[in-house]
Amino acid sequence: MTSISIIGSGNMARAIGALAVQGDNTVEIISRDAAKAAALAGALGKGVTTGTWGSAPAGDIVILAVLFDSAAPIVSRFGDALAGKIIVDITNPFNATADGLAIPENTSVAQEVAKAAPADAKVVKAFNTVFGHVLEKGQTLDVFFAGDDTQAKAHVSKFIESLGLRPLDVGGLKMAHWLEGAGLVLMGVARYGAGNFDIALGVTKVPG
Amino acid sequence: MTSISIIGSGNMARAIGALAVQGDNTVEIISRDAAKAAALAGALGKGVTTGTWGSAPAGDIVILAVLFDSAAPIVSRFGDALAGKIIVDITNPFNATADGLAIPENTSVAQEVAKAAPADAKVVKAFNTVFGHVLEKGQTLDVFFAGDDTQAKAHVSKFIESLGLRPLDVGGLKMAHWLEGAGLVLMGVARYGAGNFDIALGVTKVPG
Repeated sequence: MTSISIIGSGNMARAIGALAVQGDNTVEIISRDAAKAAALAGALGKGVTTGTWGSAPAGDIVILAVLFDSAAPIVSRFGDALAGKIIVDITNPFNATADGLAIPENTSVAQEVAKAAPADAKVVKAFNTVFGHVLEKGQTLDVFFAGDDTQAKAHVSKFIESLGLRPLDVGGLKMAHWLEGAGLVLMGVARYGAGNFDIALGVTKVPG
Repeated sequence: MTSISIIGSGNMARAIGALAVQGDNTVEIISRDAAKAAALAGALGKGVTTGTWGSAPAGDIVILAVLFDSAAPIVSRFGDALAGKIIVDITNPFNATADGLAIPENTSVAQEVAKAAPADAKVVKAFNTVFGHVLEKGQTLDVFFAGDDTQAKAHVSKFIESLGLRPLDVGGLKMAHWLEGAGLVLMGVARYGAGNFDIALGVTKVPG
């Protein structure tokens, strides 16, 4: 069981929050709009609490379920309130037409979040390759993740398992760039290959 | 049934060639080393022919099964011999440690191949997200592909199906950059997430 705080109150916050509650994790919702946080917390179940914008989150894992261009600024805004936390960046920096990334090629949102975070916070990229509405279907999906801190990744991996999902470590935080690109590949398949968005990216074992 | 030429005589040439023969396609092998081409053609079966290095390939689809840094130079070397062909770039421009790409961020091997190719040739990126030894197991795998020409993509898609594989269109040729990145994600999962290379990247339908 993990104690998590979700910053955000949109679709991904709801989808991850619902699975986290089902998985017996302790869940706190934090939103710039306190009424939205309260509404989502209420919808998720009676054990779910709300936190205060800019104050220290209650959770050990803090999930940034916000628009990509708010992610690093929000982490800066929280500042030392995030000291010692594991920060999970789930964002997709899609450009306006979702066929390219709106972030320089030599970085990623996750790496920018790491620059903005307190020195002892650990950043993990995860969940950006799953669509929120697909997550809500409650099936076992693959969740790719990347990060530089082994312990933080182990904690996030265990949390992902508690959601009934399959964690897949892809390496260090610089792989976040390619996970953000994998989000584009998933979008491309949805548009061109599958013709719909009821799909998930994953890895299959093909035994010898 | 498609007529294909494979430039190359390594693992991927053998894996794709074997499936192509099984799928009743006409297969030609072209290698800088004529003896290697003859050996692979012989191993693939008696209908398989060899072509001449630098001359017009017999196949409508020409598969570049070479190292990534040879791809564009070889296409330049063949020059007008590739006029009107569909060129399939399957390469992965991994850096020496296979945790980044050894090609500038604003392009891809496939786009460099397109620049080197005759004006009326069509370039499609495909097969770079499958491991050759996994392909040889003969299971149904997902083959992501990208390209700018609709007809060329339809032809490649049909060819992929003839191999018993599932084609997944991800969009225009500029998506080749992100497919090359998806190759890195697959490598990352093999090393860190799965702990072995007997895996395949794919997309699952998650119906409503």
